[in-house]
Amino acid sequence: MEKPSLDKNLTTWKRKLYIIIYGTSTKLGRLFDIVLLVLIVLSIILVMLESVASYNIKYHDQFYFAEWVITIFFSIEYILRIISINKPTKYIFSFYGIVDLLSTIPSYIIFFVGGSNMFLAVRALRLLRVFRILKVTRYIGESQKLISALKNSRAKISIFLFAVVIICIITGTLMYLVEGPENGFTNIPLSIYWAIVTLTTVGFGDIHPLTPLGRFIASFIMIIGYGVIAVPTGIVGAEMSKDMSKADEIKPFICPNCGEKEHKPSSEFCHNCGKKLNEN
Amino acid sequence: MEKPSLDKNLTTWKRKLYIIIYGTSTKLGRLFDIVLLVLIVLSIILVMLESVASYNIKYHDQFYFAEWVITIFFSIEYILRIISINKPTKYIFSFYGIVDLLSTIPSYIIFFVGGSNMFLAVRALRLLRVFRILKVTRYIGESQKLISALKNSRAKISIFLFAVVIICIITGTLMYLVEGPENGFTNIPLSIYWAIVTLTTVGFGDIHPLTPLGRFIASFIMIIGYGVIAVPTGIVGAEMSKDMSKADEIKPFICPNCGEKEHKPSSEFCHNCGKKLNEN
Amino acid sequence: MEKPSLDKNLTTWKRKLYIIIYGTSTKLGRLFDIVLLVLIVLSIILVMLESVASYNIKYHDQFYFAEWVITIFFSIEYILRIISINKPTKYIFSFYGIVDLLSTIPSYIIFFVGGSNMFLAVRALRLLRVFRILKVTRYIGESQKLISALKNSRAKISIFLFAVVIICIITGTLMYLVEGPENGFTNIPLSIYWAIVTLTTVGFGDIHPLTPLGRFIASFIMIIGYGVIAVPTGIVGAEMSKDMSKADEIKPFICPNCGEKEHKPSSEFCHNCGKKLNEN
Amino acid sequence: MEKPSLDKNLTTWKRKLYIIIYGTSTKLGRLFDIVLLVLIVLSIILVMLESVASYNIKYHDQFYFAEWVITIFFSIEYILRIISINKPTKYIFSFYGIVDLLSTIPSYIIFFVGGSNMFLAVRALRLLRVFRILKVTRYIGESQKLISALKNSRAKISIFLFAVVIICIITGTLMYLVEGPENGFTNIPLSIYWAIVTLTTVGFGDIHPLTPLGRFIASFIMIIGYGVIAVPTGIVGAEMSKDMSKADEIKPFICPNCGEKEHKPSSEFCHNCGKKLNEN
Repeated sequence: MEKPSLDKNLTTWKRKLYIIIYGTSTKLGRLFDIVLLVLIVLSIILVMLESVASYNIKYHDQFYFAEWVITIFFSIEYILRIISINKPTKYIFSFYGIVDLLSTIPSYIIFFVGGSNMFLAVRALRLLRVFRILKVTRYIGESQKLISALKNSRAKISIFLFAVVIICIITGTLMYLVEGPENGFTNIPLSIYWAIVTLTTVGFGDIHPLTPLGRFIASFIMIIGYGVIAVPTGIVGAEMSKDMSKADEIKPFICPNCGEKEHKPSSEFCHNCGKKLNEN
Repeated sequence: MEKPSLDKNLTTWKRKLYIIIYGTSTKLGRLFDIVLLVLIVLSIILVMLESVASYNIKYHDQFYFAEWVITIFFSIEYILRIISINKPTKYIFSFYGIVDLLSTIPSYIIFFVGGSNMFLAVRALRLLRVFRILKVTRYIGESQKLISALKNSRAKISIFLFAVVIICIITGTLMYLVEGPENGFTNIPLSIYWAIVTLTTVGFGDIHPLTPLGRFIASFIMIIGYGVIAVPTGIVGAEMSKDMSKADEIKPFICPNCGEKEHKPSSEFCHNCGKKLNEN
Repeated sequence: MEKPSLDKNLTTWKRKLYIIIYGTSTKLGRLFDIVLLVLIVLSIILVMLESVASYNIKYHDQFYFAEWVITIFFSIEYILRIISINKPTKYIFSFYGIVDLLSTIPSYIIFFVGGSNMFLAVRALRLLRVFRILKVTRYIGESQKLISALKNSRAKISIFLFAVVIICIITGTLMYLVEGPENGFTNIPLSIYWAIVTLTTVGFGDIHPLTPLGRFIASFIMIIGYGVIAVPTGIVGAEMSKDMSKADEIKPFICPNCGEKEHKPSSEFCHNCGKKLNEN
Repeated sequence: MEKPSLDKNLTTWKRKLYIIIYGTSTKLGRLFDIVLLVLIVLSIILVMLESVASYNIKYHDQFYFAEWVITIFFSIEYILRIISINKPTKYIFSFYGIVDLLSTIPSYIIFFVGGSNMFLAVRALRLLRVFRILKVTRYIGESQKLISALKNSRAKISIFLFAVVIICIITGTLMYLVEGPENGFTNIPLSIYWAIVTLTTVGFGDIHPLTPLGRFIASFIMIIGYGVIAVPTGIVGAEMSKDMSKADEIKPFICPNCGEKEHKPSSEFCHNCGKKLNEN
């Protein structure tokens, strides 16, 4: 979610609210963020525990109560977020806006339609709040470097994964021919699923080859998967190595003539304008 | 498939056809490629869905119709490819030429011999069309770098995988001795298959050691496999690191004044003597 | 455990004892360490063997005897450690102090309360001695480099693992919705456990998707897990590469003539101006 | 096996034999090696096929015949190897000498004692010939680099694997406590085996946690294993990167004054004697 720019025409209380809810520079703003994070984590734990049948029977009332407390808080948060910015649609139709709305609605539907008629589909919507955990990532500084390294090697990794998928389609089809439905490879999509499970070295074992030829092909896939995992690793590793050495080797001493900032530490003259550099 | 060189002696319509089918520079040529790609993907999806028994019963007629549409298109494509080049044998006996032919024939055989007498072996030929997906790779530029990095480290990776196979043969034989047929290690090839499943960290679990000594040896193999995966990764990673730093950081243009050879590609002045560089 | 500083006010025999127990510079000190290490390893093997039911019945008396020998030795060691330093609380409340105490007590409790009433919880305490194996790590020099490399990339790896956990929470919840209790995904925590098992490419196979959609999502997770393992590898690899090249190739001694700073440690003359270098 | 040095006092035919058997520079020497390699591979395939019960019944006579052909050839090879060198004990007590002898004996024992009384232990000796496959590695040049890279990082990898074993001992003991014999974790060694299976991401699934706490600890181990695999990869990768950049960057132009061979490409003066370098 992009932080909507502070609108100068907002009334004073709206501005204050905006600073608290969307900002992190004031004490109250930080407090709001911390309370929100705690509640997000709590609401996710609540959803998890509710899914455990034995807990749900035992602590049904407590869960019901906690659910309402969280629902009300998130409803208030949703309303405050809307009224504190000038262009509410920007928030409403953002990823988090939709998640916030959809994961809050079910409790109200269940309340008005009646608990006994609670539809599974409506209930499932509540699980959307698990996506709110992504809000936590905003608060972690270091993650930017990782994301940028991943972004830089995104093209190469995509191609690699695409190649993996093609290998899996071909070997999956081959295994369907070799093993056939009588050995568990009931159809081609399932065989491709098996090839993915095998190439990625997960190996559930729910399906596995039974004929000698099938096992030979499987050995082949596994060894390829084992050798080929080196490729994405090499890509990201090289990317990170480059980033690190860049950060390390290029010491930012600025050319007094042209302002060029990136010089190799061994340079005596600016490579941009040819002026002599005074190393610090 | 190598792109056959454009023959000057072709008649005009043949040349036009050639440019459309084998080329990618004209609008029609690109359209032809896109339509072909879509049909390849569709034909593969069709083959996959047909292999699902429940779908095949339900949508038999639709599948039959789609099959014929695709067969006719690929037949026309095959004929056009042959008549538009001067040396058709070059295409016919290329990998894609054989795949294109073999995967198109079955539909005709089934039609003339009769649907009820459809042999499995003939039907299986149709699955060859899955190899056509490799044509897609032609259109991805970035993949060249990956392939070149893999090619450069091919020798080392082959040796590594060869070493893996030798370790698996030895440990597989050992496990056959230790565990024996009564614990599922019924023969040496199967034990070697198990060793490959284990060393590559796939671990299906269809066969697993049951004696303490067998488990001890298995632990040994697993830890080796876990530690040794570093080797191909290191190879490819080092190879890529080298490629990247070569491509990115140093273009070899020599300073005409001091002879310094390593300059950043963006440098306009030599960082060693301050002389203006004439980039080539 | 930090090595408590040698206190000058200790009586002579206390000082001698201190040097033997906490030091490694004297012959007796090294002997003490070796005997201790052997006994730690033996006590761990003993605990392991005792847990095997068939061995425990067969060799019950020998185990009982060995248990007491080890208990008495560790008790003496514990007492000596306390009386040989001035501030015993520093040792007593250190990690190893607590482990040493808790893992020695059970034998006495069992002896005084009676063997037949031996509580499982008390017995379990004895297993704490397995943590004593960590003392062994103190004696391995090379491990420092590894630990420092890990420490340097700790922040990045933590974020990476945090991201992995978030992905697992989201996909686990998704799989609970898609597969549901009837396919083994009985509740959300279990589904998250499955997602972790799958993403980390372990793949036990106790739970696995059975619906086509579930298998599709699973394929997605597996391919992500397979591609994403590159990230921590890249981080540590880059970190180590940096450490190695730093340590190996460039010792910073500056040429007194031209100021060139990067010389190979074996160089005797500056490679930039040819002046003799005075290595420090 | 070290190549025994050519002894000048050998009679002429012994020298010729020596050159053929131990050398690879003559035509006959290479032919001998190729025949030997083929026979080693054939003998291993034979042992594998014999272990498959159905093949053994069907082709018993053929296997028996092939076995004798191979046994006789390897016997002759063994005798020739002994008589062609001056110090036969050097070969006899080398690794391959023992393997060659032990794997040839069983056939004779079975022949003289009688086929029906064939002891399993004697038969098992024949499987030793699988180690002969290691002879193949001698012929691969590239493998030296890999082995040297592994050797250089041997110390670090050993410590890493030692750390893995310690983690497995601790978590295995923990899981024994948490899950206990009733959930398949029947004793501590088995639990440690499970921890190894899990940490190395193999995951057979023969044993897996069933309690929530056990699953939580398992998740922890898996995520550690997934994150920690980066360490050996980083070690080997960094080692290889170093090797490669060494090979690449240090261009062998020899100092005309002192003969020092390794100079950085940017050096203008020899770092060993201070003489001006004439770059080629």
